[in-house]
Amino acid sequence: MVCVNVELKERRYPIYIGENLLTDTGVYPVKMGDKVMIVSNPTVAQYYLTPVTETLEKLGCQVSHVLLPDGEKYKTLDSLNMIFTALLKENHGRDTTLIALGGGVIGDVTGYAAASYQRGIRFIQIPTTLLAQVDSSVGGKTAVNHELGKNMIGAFYQPCTVIIDTRTLVTLPKREVNAGLAEVIKYGAILDLPFFEWLEAHIDNLVALNQQDLQYCIARCCQIKADVVARDETEKGDRALLNLGHTFGHAIETHLGYGNWLHGEAVAAGSMMAAVLSEKLGDLSYSEVARLEKLLARANLPTVSPNTMQAEDYLPHMMRDKKVLAGKLRLVLLKTLGQAYVASDTDKSLVLDAIRVCSQNN
Amino acid sequence: MVCVNVELKERRYPIYIGENLLTDTGVYPVKMGDKVMIVSNPTVAQYYLTPVTETLEKLGCQVSHVLLPDGEKYKTLDSLNMIFTALLKENHGRDTTLIALGGGVIGDVTGYAAASYQRGIRFIQIPTTLLAQVDSSVGGKTAVNHELGKNMIGAFYQPCTVIIDTRTLVTLPKREVNAGLAEVIKYGAILDLPFFEWLEAHIDNLVALNQQDLQYCIARCCQIKADVVARDETEKGDRALLNLGHTFGHAIETHLGYGNWLHGEAVAAGSMMAAVLSEKLGDLSYSEVARLEKLLARANLPTVSPNTMQAEDYLPHMMRDKKVLAGKLRLVLLKTLGQAYVASDTDKSLVLDAIRVCSQNN
Repeated sequence: MVCVNVELKERRYPIYIGENLLTDTGVYPVKMGDKVMIVSNPTVAQYYLTPVTETLEKLGCQVSHVLLPDGEKYKTLDSLNMIFTALLKENHGRDTTLIALGGGVIGDVTGYAAASYQRGIRFIQIPTTLLAQVDSSVGGKTAVNHELGKNMIGAFYQPCTVIIDTRTLVTLPKREVNAGLAEVIKYGAILDLPFFEWLEAHIDNLVALNQQDLQYCIARCCQIKADVVARDETEKGDRALLNLGHTFGHAIETHLGYGNWLHGEAVAAGSMMAAVLSEKLGDLSYSEVARLEKLLARANLPTVSPNTMQAEDYLPHMMRDKKVLAGKLRLVLLKTLGQAYVASDTDKSLVLDAIRVCSQNN
Repeated sequence: MVCVNVELKERRYPIYIGENLLTDTGVYPVKMGDKVMIVSNPTVAQYYLTPVTETLEKLGCQVSHVLLPDGEKYKTLDSLNMIFTALLKENHGRDTTLIALGGGVIGDVTGYAAASYQRGIRFIQIPTTLLAQVDSSVGGKTAVNHELGKNMIGAFYQPCTVIIDTRTLVTLPKREVNAGLAEVIKYGAILDLPFFEWLEAHIDNLVALNQQDLQYCIARCCQIKADVVARDETEKGDRALLNLGHTFGHAIETHLGYGNWLHGEAVAAGSMMAAVLSEKLGDLSYSEVARLEKLLARANLPTVSPNTMQAEDYLPHMMRDKKVLAGKLRLVLLKTLGQAYVASDTDKSLVLDAIRVCSQNN
């Protein structure tokens, strides 16, 4: 087991990473209140609800649960309200603890519920997908989607503990493991060339779920993210760099309808668009673009736009991105592999060109 | 005009109080972004939407608005979503400003929308009811209701400015002016005996909307609240004192259905229950209870339970109060007029007795 600490202005919290941590009473916080509620979905619950419940009961908690329907399209105010209703029906007070047991959707909805229920209660993240383990469970961004935009409604709200059990990846569909690798590759591309190189050497092991490499990889991603979040909790600056490929990716997800492409798949294609745009701006070399494309492809990720989407379809969605300021598009681009920056007011015709280069019909 | 400052750990913000401030460009913040959106309801908008819009346009803002249906029963996630939809349709970015123009419902929903839209945007409170002016617009508590409990979903989120125009009370129904006086009287009862005595001397002027006395009274209430909030922004301690009568009052509101009794009316009857309970516990004298009852009655406020409600109807609602800890009821009670405290685990049979004393059939 390894532990990465997230150091914030007002407090710190641990991320534990290792095998079989779900049933390890030692990684749960000492102070949890009498009652806890686990939020999960049927897919994850069939494997992990009972072991987590039993572990919490050993710690003296009265445990209940609520299951949300599975999938990004249920990341809504309605799902949020299911959690509130469950908490209120069982008279959970302000001293209760919410536990998010699942992927990014469960984590984001549960985190926002924890931020909002009685104006804020304790919560624990137990991410069970690679995507959630390396990204969404760390850093306190919580949200639900609106039909007009992804993650538009939410809060910055930090968990008190994150418990990452690498064994949970064994029950995860391969497609979702790969989608998580898109965010892993992103960390290398934006901030850490040596890690990018490590990934070039170990990507096949990760795809094959080698537990030791997974633990190293997840811990490294969490450390990168924890460092960024410590510098910029509420995304006034550097934190935006973590969004490489996301502005394009969100457009794909919104246009296709949530859940058709996985978030990581959209980020993979979006990262390629950002890389091609960076090359057009004279920063990234052609060989660097090719290295990124190859690494994504080895993780079985898409590197081109969905064939049902035209370049023109992207911009209206992209203009609703949270990085837009005073009506101007801001994009995360690459100076070189391992070094990202936020570009303001990039020429829209270049943006369209980059999307066209990454189109299947190209 | 007077200005009361709310001093928080991380920042401060001003509350301006005076006549005709709505159209005074000097009280709006210098930094508002290009776009602002006013949230109001049709009742308030007919009087004040145009003057506020014109004032903001003079300041160079592009102003749009969204009107929510009027009333406590619309303080819901659905109304919240109407604001998000309006913001997204017009491509409002993270640098936009939301303006709450209306009473407590508008302020609470708008504040929570501002806390949640893109995880937090700037917002201004322009409360147009006495209740909102002395209470809900100050201190950063925002929320919507759940069918199982009032204000159960929300955030602590502070405005950047509060603009209180005492002239708006002229268009307010008398019943709502009186409801606001319930919270005014509460401040005297819990923390400020001299102010309670001032109210005994000036209550008729306030009912008659004497502008000078209103300005003094509102400023004093805001100052009391600002001091409490500065000590305890997220209600870990003293701030709970502001809830005198509210645990009983919320039970009345929830049981009758939101909007049948005004919040202030429920708080008035609830304050009497708390006072009678305090007398039963040997703290408050009988004459103090009588003084409170008389002052509330002079403001035309109810001092007894609704006749459709039995004492036993209160407890299930009261056990869902946000002050409940580890399943134990905590109530704000009075040691004496001007001094409140939080009582833990009060004998429920005494609570029922106090409610019965304050019943119409008694």
